[in-house]
Amino acid sequence: MGPGPSDVHPRVLDALGKGTIGHLDPYYLELMDRMQQMLRDLFQTANRMTIAISATGSAGMEAAVVNLIEPGDSMLVCVNGVFGMRMADVATRAGAAVTQIKRPWGEVFTVDELKQGLAQAKPKVVGIVMAETSTGAWQPIEEISRVVHEAGSLLLVDTVTALGGIPVEVDAWNIDAVYSGTQKCLSCPPGLAPVSFSQRALDVILHRKTKVQSWYLDINLLANYWGTDRVYHHTAPVNMTYALYEALRIIFEEGLDKCFARHMRNHQALRAGLASLGIGYAAQDGHQLPMLNAVRIPDGVDDAATRSALLHRFGIEIGAGLGEFRGKVWRIGLMGYSSRANNVLLFLSVLEQLLAEQGYPFEHGSSIAAANAVYAT
Amino acid sequence: MGPGPSDVHPRVLDALGKGTIGHLDPYYLELMDRMQQMLRDLFQTANRMTIAISATGSAGMEAAVVNLIEPGDSMLVCVNGVFGMRMADVATRAGAAVTQIKRPWGEVFTVDELKQGLAQAKPKVVGIVMAETSTGAWQPIEEISRVVHEAGSLLLVDTVTALGGIPVEVDAWNIDAVYSGTQKCLSCPPGLAPVSFSQRALDVILHRKTKVQSWYLDINLLANYWGTDRVYHHTAPVNMTYALYEALRIIFEEGLDKCFARHMRNHQALRAGLASLGIGYAAQDGHQLPMLNAVRIPDGVDDAATRSALLHRFGIEIGAGLGEFRGKVWRIGLMGYSSRANNVLLFLSVLEQLLAEQGYPFEHGSSIAAANAVYAT
Repeated sequence: MGPGPSDVHPRVLDALGKGTIGHLDPYYLELMDRMQQMLRDLFQTANRMTIAISATGSAGMEAAVVNLIEPGDSMLVCVNGVFGMRMADVATRAGAAVTQIKRPWGEVFTVDELKQGLAQAKPKVVGIVMAETSTGAWQPIEEISRVVHEAGSLLLVDTVTALGGIPVEVDAWNIDAVYSGTQKCLSCPPGLAPVSFSQRALDVILHRKTKVQSWYLDINLLANYWGTDRVYHHTAPVNMTYALYEALRIIFEEGLDKCFARHMRNHQALRAGLASLGIGYAAQDGHQLPMLNAVRIPDGVDDAATRSALLHRFGIEIGAGLGEFRGKVWRIGLMGYSSRANNVLLFLSVLEQLLAEQGYPFEHGSSIAAANAVYAT
Repeated sequence: MGPGPSDVHPRVLDALGKGTIGHLDPYYLELMDRMQQMLRDLFQTANRMTIAISATGSAGMEAAVVNLIEPGDSMLVCVNGVFGMRMADVATRAGAAVTQIKRPWGEVFTVDELKQGLAQAKPKVVGIVMAETSTGAWQPIEEISRVVHEAGSLLLVDTVTALGGIPVEVDAWNIDAVYSGTQKCLSCPPGLAPVSFSQRALDVILHRKTKVQSWYLDINLLANYWGTDRVYHHTAPVNMTYALYEALRIIFEEGLDKCFARHMRNHQALRAGLASLGIGYAAQDGHQLPMLNAVRIPDGVDDAATRSALLHRFGIEIGAGLGEFRGKVWRIGLMGYSSRANNVLLFLSVLEQLLAEQGYPFEHGSSIAAANAVYAT
């Protein structure tokens, strides 16, 4: 129940441990094709260039940035947490002239703020994080995409924590480049980074004046392996493909809408339970992610001791605060297979125990009752 | 029996499919420490900065290059196959002024050739491939390292296919940066890239004027996660760590010397069997890799049809020729767990069948007898 890796579905672990075959084996190529189609369905896009990068989600960020950016290009990065900061760093290393616009941690960006940033930076690319894992803030994308495109810029969106937990509508929202990771709401181990590029983005990449600085992440080269030519590039992480394939199958067996509704329901139950204990959220009202519950550690409660007791006495991991939120925030994941009523109820009951031991005042059983009231509706 | 991924040991597959825990879980951190020590033992080095990059072997190449190279640095790359070509491309993308010295495919470089290249390029870094997977050539490193260091350059060595199959003595040979992959002689699925950097290399990296162009591969940042600080960088591919950990345990249970001797013995048996069929090697005499047998396709034998029949009728994969060797060479892997007498004998018996069907003249059973004669000694 941390900020990822989330619990992995047993069927995904089974798939992961199957015998390794060649990365050019006809059966493997068929798996790749089918997985690509499921990734398109998950991103809600028809983008041909929808693949899984052979590394973790942060490499997905780097892939999106280094393919779109050439040295000297202007990039506007929206920073309201760790992952916006990271994107600014990655873009700077790619040679971008980076302009940052900032919001306090836990808050999201408005369309007007974007307009100001666009007018100032005149960026080739705008980067924004849809689900800030460090703050639990849920950034709306659709309206921002409109103003980004009105300004003639490309939109790059981080959906590492979003994908599979809340709707990510790449085509409807007109996103140009998007990346995610396998270890959050896809209930798969870390190791692959799903990405998708719009035709507009591919045209920009095709007409670059310079080579993409990363050979490993160059979409032009990857397209020849994932496309019909099957030109050898690097040796694909075969077993991770098995795992992601199975993870995607599980999501579509449940159905995307039901999957999103389940994430929301368990979040509401947890939130109700925590509220009854006087524990509130770090992200602004109306913009709290269902899968990443960043909550304020109550006064008088020991951060490290509580997390340690959760892990060592009860086998439950939750995340510490990062950066500005260190020591102030816990990050409780309800991602993918981890988003289950029993996890919510178990966590609340254990938390009550640990709060009681530290003399924190609350009404015993109140959190369980509040959560169950949500489940009863 | 292709050029990798090789067959994965069943114990490694079991480990791979174990439950995913957090990348900052104390148990996981302990696994990382132990794995690091085994990687040091495998590379035969005391290098503190010996880790596994969270991506495949080609990302290991990129990590080695982009950490050592700053824009404008001179790099000398030795090219006698696909992977030398790739290294030159990666280095160019990192901003290096690349000088290539070349040998015909299948041949290796002499100390004198290196001396000439060093005098001409005065490189900061020399890159060379120890085991060229495209040609099966085994490049000696020790003497070359001496002249590289006499010239004041750093030595970067590709051991993707070498590591675990032939001795790689990083400290004794004074190698500054080395990388490998998990899917060759380590009998582990693709997905991690073991790397090691000497103190001399780390000093160069520490005193860079520019940031490493890749955030994901920046050794300065990775050192803080793999070191005692455990600063979060990216989410490690937890299950792949389980797999590599188990793969390394298996290698040390057998013992490095025995493991190398097994690779050599199976290679000699295969070579004797193929010789009896009139099939010779693509790499020069005295420099043929035991784990990657690149052999010349006999006249009158259909490359694609034979490989297809091996795969579809017998479930045996071998590699096609790459680049200049396309259609001329087969690449038969005897790597790690795949390096077994039964694989050699099965392959020869099946090959005899397919050659007979194509009217190729040879004495039936001769290859099996020749291989068994090697095993009998």
